[in-house]
Amino acid sequence: MIITLTTDFGYQDGFVGVMKGVIAGINPQAQVIDLSHSIPPHNILAGALVLAHSLRYFPRGTIHLAVVDPGVGGTRQPLLIEAAGDYFIGPDNGILSLAFEDKLPTRILRLSNPAYHLQNRQNASHTFHGRDVFAPVAAHLSLGVSALAFGETQDSFVKLAMPALICRERRIEGQIIYFDVFGNLFTNIRRRDLTGLGEGNPRIAVGQARCEGLVTSYAAIVPGEFGAIINSWGLLEIALYKDSAQRRSGAKVGDKVEVSLKE
Amino acid sequence: MIITLTTDFGYQDGFVGVMKGVIAGINPQAQVIDLSHSIPPHNILAGALVLAHSLRYFPRGTIHLAVVDPGVGGTRQPLLIEAAGDYFIGPDNGILSLAFEDKLPTRILRLSNPAYHLQNRQNASHTFHGRDVFAPVAAHLSLGVSALAFGETQDSFVKLAMPALICRERRIEGQIIYFDVFGNLFTNIRRRDLTGLGEGNPRIAVGQARCEGLVTSYAAIVPGEFGAIINSWGLLEIALYKDSAQRRSGAKVGDKVEVSLKE
Amino acid sequence: MIITLTTDFGYQDGFVGVMKGVIAGINPQAQVIDLSHSIPPHNILAGALVLAHSLRYFPRGTIHLAVVDPGVGGTRQPLLIEAAGDYFIGPDNGILSLAFEDKLPTRILRLSNPAYHLQNRQNASHTFHGRDVFAPVAAHLSLGVSALAFGETQDSFVKLAMPALICRERRIEGQIIYFDVFGNLFTNIRRRDLTGLGEGNPRIAVGQARCEGLVTSYAAIVPGEFGAIINSWGLLEIALYKDSAQRRSGAKVGDKVEVSLKE
Repeated sequence: MIITLTTDFGYQDGFVGVMKGVIAGINPQAQVIDLSHSIPPHNILAGALVLAHSLRYFPRGTIHLAVVDPGVGGTRQPLLIEAAGDYFIGPDNGILSLAFEDKLPTRILRLSNPAYHLQNRQNASHTFHGRDVFAPVAAHLSLGVSALAFGETQDSFVKLAMPALICRERRIEGQIIYFDVFGNLFTNIRRRDLTGLGEGNPRIAVGQARCEGLVTSYAAIVPGEFGAIINSWGLLEIALYKDSAQRRSGAKVGDKVEVSLKE
Repeated sequence: MIITLTTDFGYQDGFVGVMKGVIAGINPQAQVIDLSHSIPPHNILAGALVLAHSLRYFPRGTIHLAVVDPGVGGTRQPLLIEAAGDYFIGPDNGILSLAFEDKLPTRILRLSNPAYHLQNRQNASHTFHGRDVFAPVAAHLSLGVSALAFGETQDSFVKLAMPALICRERRIEGQIIYFDVFGNLFTNIRRRDLTGLGEGNPRIAVGQARCEGLVTSYAAIVPGEFGAIINSWGLLEIALYKDSAQRRSGAKVGDKVEVSLKE
Repeated sequence: MIITLTTDFGYQDGFVGVMKGVIAGINPQAQVIDLSHSIPPHNILAGALVLAHSLRYFPRGTIHLAVVDPGVGGTRQPLLIEAAGDYFIGPDNGILSLAFEDKLPTRILRLSNPAYHLQNRQNASHTFHGRDVFAPVAAHLSLGVSALAFGETQDSFVKLAMPALICRERRIEGQIIYFDVFGNLFTNIRRRDLTGLGEGNPRIAVGQARCEGLVTSYAAIVPGEFGAIINSWGLLEIALYKDSAQRRSGAKVGDKVEVSLKE
């Protein structure tokens, strides 16, 4: 059974390592795969985007544990969500919420049963639910414990509001939502949104950056000029060849992206 | 059998990967878990702190390999220490020494038997004992080789001197000892040190930063104000909500931390 | 079966995690070991150097997957190379080419058979062959699929031109080729190149930095002075004790390194 981890815990402090220690102590056979531990601190949207665009590449039945959790120990609930045979564990703050575009949750539980938490089992910390609540629940789940054992079902969960597209005739307005390690600009405009625009060659504008038409590979981008491409997440992206479009454009998350079909 | 790794080798150069290759070549069944490879270069104290506060979350019998080793190839000895059924492998420079607060070592060996080192087995490098000495010894140990086979016992090992607390009536003076990935300030004041202060609401001061009382979760910290909390390592910590207390306070390792009970 | 990964994908975006998900979906028993995911973006030489100096520490039969691939989706071919019982998978842009100094390839194939690619198997992306081509091929190979199944053989592959040494009597001129995490300066001068110089104490010069003779351990370097050492890759290296020679010297990749025997 695979357990993936997505956190903003970084690689220095041993926080991820102890989660793996807890999991290995409960289920030595669990296979733990890191999705990311470099989510920018407290950036729930970035964590949700990484998880949502990665999960389809894992076998059915995978347990996805995601923790970007500035509200740990407060009123937000720890959750287990089941959807289409996959499992999602993390705080109820939206980090899991972008994972369900194509499949509705079949079960939502809050992890209220302390028998599956760490420590003297009455006394999980208020500062590190990744180690004390989410990791042990994921490990027990990977052993075959029924989801219902971990707590009580509830009807809903916190959803992140993705910025909506503004669609006009032969024109779409979206936003920059993410930068990857190469400094590529990820937008919230999907391949099918562009298809819906109609026939023609799109012009893309972000701030001062302009692209005429889409390319199908990075190597087709003219060096020094911005290029637009459908990226590996299925999103419209603005990129430079062997350079950082983020640095060169100065773009920020939330900046407007305009796509228009030429006359 | 689990082998944990704690190093300052970073994630770029393949140094950690080759250690795992060496281990897998000797014991393909060993389960290797990274604690940290981003210990600040040459910072033995930081490595020792991460190891010491992580090991309790691993099953009994785990082998902990830690290498922050500016003296590699010099006179410092490579060590294997056994304590309470766990094993600790690394240079005798203090990096292992904070792991034994609650359990005394039952055996200390220097890794003087070259039969368990890499290479032509007479010729380990003088620059990379992680790969040539510590990794193969950990792997052989995980296969069940007796600890005594790896070298000769000795009586003592290098211990890091943790800065002592200065305790006065209704007042403790400690230090900043570590910053985590979120920029939280970790002190050397433990939960039980505060308990020993007596009844009352503590006031905490670090440089210009002030906290009145302790909170029990990050979410309870007033945005923009410093908060004091017992963190996941069991230490008094000064934090900001969704911000870096290190950056905002300018605090440095070694800075004085004062805790006093209000009149 | 071990699969190593060497990429410039970083640790934030989940790109490495999805490659592991793809592999685990095809061969849950494959053991994946990270060599590096912090190769500087688009730096094919750095990736090739890390791979070339790491592979000897893995068991025979290991599959090495390396992706630094600015030309993905363009005309460069995806390759599988077999050499001395090991396997190398990646783009035909030179990243694999430094791995064959001691062993000639016995087979070179371009990965032209889409049956072993991801997706609907006719439709791998043009932007992420690591996930859609290289990972599934590596996983199928680790299951025992014959190398010949993945595509057609070809005769040659792109080779990186390593800068040549200029050797004169009692004098060698080389270059800085790499910096490691500690800021040590790696040169293209090997242990055996120095042996070939003849008897005597070498003097090493890089920009303003000077070293008289070689030391055998970092601890033997006088604090504050540059020292020369044969490092763990078997290369001449210029280092400082507990400090970054890169930062102190301002050296860059390509800078000239002169070694001369004293009169």
